[in-house]
Amino acid sequence: MKNRLYNIIFKADTKEGILFDIVLLILIVASVALVMLESVVPINNKYGHFFDISEWIITILFSIEYIVRIYISRRPKKYIFSGLGIIDLLSLLPKYLSYFLVGSHALVALRALRLLRVFRILKLARYIDESNKLVSSLKASKAKISVFLMAVIVLCILLGTIMYLVEGADNGFTSIPQSVYWCIVTMTTVGFGDIAPATPLGKLIASLIMIIGYGIIAVPTGIVSAEYAQQKSKKNNINPNQCPQCATTKISESASFCHNCGQALT
Amino acid sequence: MKNRLYNIIFKADTKEGILFDIVLLILIVASVALVMLESVVPINNKYGHFFDISEWIITILFSIEYIVRIYISRRPKKYIFSGLGIIDLLSLLPKYLSYFLVGSHALVALRALRLLRVFRILKLARYIDESNKLVSSLKASKAKISVFLMAVIVLCILLGTIMYLVEGADNGFTSIPQSVYWCIVTMTTVGFGDIAPATPLGKLIASLIMIIGYGIIAVPTGIVSAEYAQQKSKKNNINPNQCPQCATTKISESASFCHNCGQALT
Amino acid sequence: MKNRLYNIIFKADTKEGILFDIVLLILIVASVALVMLESVVPINNKYGHFFDISEWIITILFSIEYIVRIYISRRPKKYIFSGLGIIDLLSLLPKYLSYFLVGSHALVALRALRLLRVFRILKLARYIDESNKLVSSLKASKAKISVFLMAVIVLCILLGTIMYLVEGADNGFTSIPQSVYWCIVTMTTVGFGDIAPATPLGKLIASLIMIIGYGIIAVPTGIVSAEYAQQKSKKNNINPNQCPQCATTKISESASFCHNCGQALT
Amino acid sequence: MKNRLYNIIFKADTKEGILFDIVLLILIVASVALVMLESVVPINNKYGHFFDISEWIITILFSIEYIVRIYISRRPKKYIFSGLGIIDLLSLLPKYLSYFLVGSHALVALRALRLLRVFRILKLARYIDESNKLVSSLKASKAKISVFLMAVIVLCILLGTIMYLVEGADNGFTSIPQSVYWCIVTMTTVGFGDIAPATPLGKLIASLIMIIGYGIIAVPTGIVSAEYAQQKSKKNNINPNQCPQCATTKISESASFCHNCGQALT
Repeated sequence: MKNRLYNIIFKADTKEGILFDIVLLILIVASVALVMLESVVPINNKYGHFFDISEWIITILFSIEYIVRIYISRRPKKYIFSGLGIIDLLSLLPKYLSYFLVGSHALVALRALRLLRVFRILKLARYIDESNKLVSSLKASKAKISVFLMAVIVLCILLGTIMYLVEGADNGFTSIPQSVYWCIVTMTTVGFGDIAPATPLGKLIASLIMIIGYGIIAVPTGIVSAEYAQQKSKKNNINPNQCPQCATTKISESASFCHNCGQALT
Repeated sequence: MKNRLYNIIFKADTKEGILFDIVLLILIVASVALVMLESVVPINNKYGHFFDISEWIITILFSIEYIVRIYISRRPKKYIFSGLGIIDLLSLLPKYLSYFLVGSHALVALRALRLLRVFRILKLARYIDESNKLVSSLKASKAKISVFLMAVIVLCILLGTIMYLVEGADNGFTSIPQSVYWCIVTMTTVGFGDIAPATPLGKLIASLIMIIGYGIIAVPTGIVSAEYAQQKSKKNNINPNQCPQCATTKISESASFCHNCGQALT
Repeated sequence: MKNRLYNIIFKADTKEGILFDIVLLILIVASVALVMLESVVPINNKYGHFFDISEWIITILFSIEYIVRIYISRRPKKYIFSGLGIIDLLSLLPKYLSYFLVGSHALVALRALRLLRVFRILKLARYIDESNKLVSSLKASKAKISVFLMAVIVLCILLGTIMYLVEGADNGFTSIPQSVYWCIVTMTTVGFGDIAPATPLGKLIASLIMIIGYGIIAVPTGIVSAEYAQQKSKKNNINPNQCPQCATTKISESASFCHNCGQALT
Repeated sequence: MKNRLYNIIFKADTKEGILFDIVLLILIVASVALVMLESVVPINNKYGHFFDISEWIITILFSIEYIVRIYISRRPKKYIFSGLGIIDLLSLLPKYLSYFLVGSHALVALRALRLLRVFRILKLARYIDESNKLVSSLKASKAKISVFLMAVIVLCILLGTIMYLVEGADNGFTSIPQSVYWCIVTMTTVGFGDIAPATPLGKLIASLIMIIGYGIIAVPTGIVSAEYAQQKSKKNNINPNQCPQCATTKISESASFCHNCGQALT
């Protein structure tokens, strides 16, 4: 019995496992849709009672799933304190809390976090390989992207401070943090327009910021492109007759070690 | 007669076929321009009668084309229920309907869908090869781009929910869907500015969203770049002396099979 | 005399030629700066007289340059009707016209077109090679980028029409052209915010448009990346021992023709 | 003693050196945070006294560091007039000046410049290699990106002038510089929305500007991608059996010079 449940919940290659995953996927999407619709005041006024009942049903179903997961897990503690385990708990608690504490209901929105499980579930599809490649190329470029983003943030603090000195509080740049926020809005080419420079010098610096932002977006893109292309070619272009260490070619097909440098061949 | 019409309408390599395609292209563009101008109130007040007559003429011409296409098609049913067939019908119906039903005239705008035929027609140009390459590299990266876009949407739902809790209805974040919409506007670096965060914490999270949006645009770009470069090199760099399966080089020019692994060579 | 002037004006590798180019560059930038400053009402009120005199001086200098260019050109007609020749003339005429016709003064702004000559002049720098590479990779991807931009425009017309039907004139989508304009503003991630969707369905479609726009920017980037990388590698990676036509390797260093296919080697 | 201080301050591979760098990093971030918070009026009203004291403490600590750096530096003049030396001084002076001159306090914000030292400090981490690669690929593409940015600026001046003539002062395009500023805002896809075209022709040109801006962002991205990929492959793919000058392969492992062209091998 415990074994069968384990197969259904944790394995994705059996018929029941796939069915369970699909039902869970639908429930998560439905629960997120409920939370979203509930936050719309006119809709909530009309269907509030229906939403409340549906939420209790979903909460109870999720509670059962949570308990079963702990029960059948081989290492229950590991699951409880894992990222997904905490998210699963966080998506249950607010509804129960709202029964005792008035005002805590808004936290039900935390249930949206369960959407992260969607990626877990989608592992059943062929997307697993693609997302692995994506994740590994992102991991490979993590250091570079960190350097880049830090440079952007330092640049925004510097230019934001300059804009604060140039424009001043009268034109909406009321403080340095506000000014840095505006600089981030501008450099990332978002441009809300709630604050905009008014002095000629401010506009000149703003133009500079925009052109910088427009130009340096090339940097992370270039990094990920190169990294991704490498991830790709690693898989496709391995020459079976070439040693990966010393690049000697014409290694015999049956060789287990490189005849030149002795590198073990896979 | 039927055969000649077939050559004119479906073939693009004869003189009449090209002429027919160009006339059709002009008619489609003209009909879309008419619909667009008609929707501008002051212009319509002035030239409304002329627009109405022109539209009837174009509708009748399109109707004739539609009937001829069905008549000469070797498999009429396939055409009628194909994407282009349905679009062709949809671009005719509203005008006829507007004769009977008041108010249905706005649907004439559906005619804009016929612009999709432009791509069909343009196949007569040398653009066909380029668009094929584009389409095939997009197809090859479909799974990856789906994973990426889904991640973006989940991220927007999560961050939108957080912004709803942080900013609240007073600052324009009236509901979670509204807040998610704002998050999409921000992450895609569009930034309308109709809603903008007002609290310091909200601005901090918004800055984070913008920097994420600015950074992760690199991901689809990197994917398409790598994919497209591969599509390109597939065509250009095939070494005629190398086996595509085992990468053995120095295969004789006249060989039909690889001397190493027996792979059939094209 | 004529020959010397020719060397000064058209050649960029002599001392006088470089000096002439630099003076011309300064004059063009100064004339554009003058036109720009003149358009600022408070500055013009103060320094209008000075601007007028400076402009006459620059106009006369440019006129002399124009006449000399015609005089020394080996094929004067070719210069007069070339793009640069017409721009040179257009930058002179408005000032003379403003003497006779009141109101034609605004056309002096056409002088900004002379900035295009900056690129000509900069050819004297080492930037020539870089801009050639850029231009050739852009030319190589012209067809693909045309297909892409046309697809974007058709998409904007389609989605703009749908937004017009969904949102209607009350929410700012007063006509289909207006709505298409909004769609271009949104899809290119500019997002002015002068028009923004107000209905839930409109916001949903807008989200879709933004995500499409955010995603498909990858396409031209990928194209130019791949094209540019190829332009680069063409120069760097030509294997001197490999035939560019049949990819046969181990061609003798002294060979003038490929021993396999007879292709002439450079 | 002097030697020990030198090791602490300038070397990053000893225990004390790392500790010193971390303390300095925290102090710089704290000082920047102080300046930022101080500029927020309500916070400053409340904690102004605390901020003033903290700033004096940090200023004195930085002063000690500055004097020690000069004292232990082997070439003190070189440090004083280096970029970092000037920044270090600029971050001290305003606070002392504010003691004598009323109103000079705002210049304390210059301290944000010290954040640039963060990059110096982070060299202690493994980020050094990544940032070197980034910097070298940016340097390699400097000429190309300059050409590109200059083309963008010239284009913005031209299109801005046209928009000024088309839209005029009534629609917010009050002068050519203003109009050029708007054009930069639009072409870089920032789109504040403080100025937006109102005439149909203006909207058409604006659409063109946006599509250009959306399309040409591909150019710097493509450049950096290709450049970065090359920087990467330079390190990874050097075939030890291939001469870097004449591309002759099959060079013996023990060779110090290419047998074909005599190029010294590393």
